[in-house]
Amino acid sequence: MERICIVGAGSWGTALGILLAKSGHSVTIWSIMNEEVEMLNQHREHIDKLPGITLPDNIMVTNNLEEGMSQTGIVVMAVPSKFVRNTAKLVKQYIQPGQIIVNVAKGLEEETLLTLAEVIEEEMPNNPVTVLSGPSHAEEVAKNIPTTCVVGARSKQVAEKIQDTFMSKTFRVYTSPDIRGIELGGALKNVIALAAGISDGLKFGDNTKAALMTRGIAEISRLGLAMGASIHTFGGLSGVGDLIVTCTSMHSRNRRAGILIGSGYTLEEAISEVKMVVEGVNTANAAYKLAQKYNIEMPIIEQVSKVLFENKNPKEAVEDLMLRDKTKEHKEYEMDFNKIINWEEE
Amino acid sequence: MERICIVGAGSWGTALGILLAKSGHSVTIWSIMNEEVEMLNQHREHIDKLPGITLPDNIMVTNNLEEGMSQTGIVVMAVPSKFVRNTAKLVKQYIQPGQIIVNVAKGLEEETLLTLAEVIEEEMPNNPVTVLSGPSHAEEVAKNIPTTCVVGARSKQVAEKIQDTFMSKTFRVYTSPDIRGIELGGALKNVIALAAGISDGLKFGDNTKAALMTRGIAEISRLGLAMGASIHTFGGLSGVGDLIVTCTSMHSRNRRAGILIGSGYTLEEAISEVKMVVEGVNTANAAYKLAQKYNIEMPIIEQVSKVLFENKNPKEAVEDLMLRDKTKEHKEYEMDFNKIINWEEE
Repeated sequence: MERICIVGAGSWGTALGILLAKSGHSVTIWSIMNEEVEMLNQHREHIDKLPGITLPDNIMVTNNLEEGMSQTGIVVMAVPSKFVRNTAKLVKQYIQPGQIIVNVAKGLEEETLLTLAEVIEEEMPNNPVTVLSGPSHAEEVAKNIPTTCVVGARSKQVAEKIQDTFMSKTFRVYTSPDIRGIELGGALKNVIALAAGISDGLKFGDNTKAALMTRGIAEISRLGLAMGASIHTFGGLSGVGDLIVTCTSMHSRNRRAGILIGSGYTLEEAISEVKMVVEGVNTANAAYKLAQKYNIEMPIIEQVSKVLFENKNPKEAVEDLMLRDKTKEHKEYEMDFNKIINWEEE
Repeated sequence: MERICIVGAGSWGTALGILLAKSGHSVTIWSIMNEEVEMLNQHREHIDKLPGITLPDNIMVTNNLEEGMSQTGIVVMAVPSKFVRNTAKLVKQYIQPGQIIVNVAKGLEEETLLTLAEVIEEEMPNNPVTVLSGPSHAEEVAKNIPTTCVVGARSKQVAEKIQDTFMSKTFRVYTSPDIRGIELGGALKNVIALAAGISDGLKFGDNTKAALMTRGIAEISRLGLAMGASIHTFGGLSGVGDLIVTCTSMHSRNRRAGILIGSGYTLEEAISEVKMVVEGVNTANAAYKLAQKYNIEMPIIEQVSKVLFENKNPKEAVEDLMLRDKTKEHKEYEMDFNKIINWEEE
C-alpha cells in the first residue's frame, strides 16, 4: 500500500482520493483553501462538487502541505491549469528525492505554451513527472462506475508503479511512454468540446457533432505529430476516448459552455452560468498560438478562437467549417505517421 | 448533372435520393415492394421512415428496375445487408458498362464473411464498385443538417466523380482508396454500438461507454489491419466518426437494441421492440468468425456475441471486459501500423 498526497481538493482530486483510499492506500488531500479543508473535515463529504459521497476514513484532509507530503511516495497534482505553476513552486519546497509526481490537470500554460507536466518538470526537474488522463468524469469515478485511464511516464518502471497504485476493480489503467501526446489530447479536446457544444446549441445534429469530433481529433493529431507525440495516443483513451466523453456528456463544463454560446450567450455570460472553471477557453487561445507556431492547419481550433475572442457568429463559424475545399480524408498523415514513442532505456 | 438510380427505398436510400434531387440531379428510386412505391408516389413522402419530409419533384419512384436504371451513370445500392447479394443479382441483369455502383449498406455477408462491396463486385466484376459511409443518420441528412461522409473507390477519378455528385452545401464528402477499411468500420461499429447500448442499459456511466468505444475502435483497427485496411481509415469519418454517432444517438437502432438487452430483454424481445433491422446482430456473428479466422483478439466483439448468442449475463460481460490483465495501451499496433492504402494506378 502507498502513502499518497493529493494536491488540490476539487472534484477530480477528491474523487481520486476516494478511489485510492478505497483500494487501501493512505491518502492525504491538501487544499490551499481553509474553508474547503474545514468543510471536508467536518462533513467528510465535498458538499459542492461531489454531493452525497462520503470520504473513507483513511483520507486525511489538511491545509499543511509539508505535513501532507511527508513520507508519501506519490504526489498527485490536481489543481486547475492556471494554478499549476504556482502550486508546483509550493510543492517544490517539500519535495523529496524519489517522490513521483502525477499530474491530473488538463490544459496548457498560456504564456509558455508548455503542457502542464512540462511546467511541473521545469519546477522540479529531479523528480519523475507522470500524467494520468482518460475519459473519467470525477462524479462517476467517485461512484465506482467502471472507468479507464492511461498513465504516461518516461520510464516503464514508474508507469507500472502508478498503474499498480491506481488500478482497481472499477478503474482500469493502461501505460504509455507518450506523456506529451497524452497531455495534448487531454488539453485540446476541451476546445473541440466547446465546438461540439456550440453545434448542439445551434440545434445542428448528431451527424454534425460527430463530424466535428472526428475532424477535431484529426487536427489534434496533426499538431501532436508536429510536436513529437505519437499518433496512436490520439486514437486512445486520452485522445478520442476523452474527446468522446467530453463532447457527449452533460457532466462536461466545456460542452455546457459551448451550448450556451451556440444559443446566443456571450463568452462572459456562458462562463458565469457554468460557474466552474472552463479550461477550454484558455486552451483555445494557447492552441491557436501552437497551430501558428508549428504551421499546422487547425480549422476547428481557429473557428472556436474566432467565436470566443473575436465575436464571430457561431453559425457562420460552423458553416465555414463545413464548406471548406473538398479533400482526401488522410493526406495529412502520409508523411510521418509512423512515429512511435518508446520507453526510455533504464 | 447526373442521372442516378437508388436501389432500395428505406430511410437511407430515400434520404440520399432527396439529397441528390435537391442538388439538381435526376433521381429514380426503385423498390421491390409495390406498396412502398405506391405510398411514395401517392404521398410524395416516406410516411413510415421519414415522416414530414416531401420528395422533390425530380424524384421518380418505380418498381421497374430496368426502367429505373436505364440511362443512369450511378446506381446506389441501399438495401439491408442480407438482401445485398440477391439485389446485386437483379441489378446485374440491367447493368451497363461504365455505370458506377455506390454501396451504402453496412454489414458483412454471414456465410462468406465478405464485405458488401465485395459481394457486389463478385456479382458485377466489370463495373466500378464504390462505397459511401460516415456518421450520417438518414433523418438528419433528409433535413439538410450538416453531415460528412467518405467515398471509397479503387480509382481516384471514380472517387472524385462520386464526391462531386454527392457534395452539397450541407453534405461534405471526402475521398479515400481504402474501400475495405471503410466497409469494416461501418459494419463493425454496429456491434460496438450494441455493447455501448448494453452498458447504458445496465446504468453504467459515460466513462464506461467512452472506454468501450475507444477499445472498440482499437479492436476494429486490429482486425482491419490484419485484413489489409489502413489504420487511418478507422480514425476517420467511417471509423470513429460513425462509431460516435451510432453509440451516442437515440436514432441508432443498434444502440437502442443494446439498451433493451442491458435492461433485461432477450435478443428476440429487443429486436421485436426496435421494429427495424438491427444490423449489428448479424454482424456480431460474422465479426466473431473473422476474429477467429485472422487470430485477432477482439474482446468486445467476443463478449457481445456471448451475450447475444449464448445468453451470457450482460453485467458479467461488461465486468469481464474491465477486469482483463493490465496492459500497455498500444502494443498491438507496433508491428505493422504503417500500412498505407494507395490509389490504383490509372
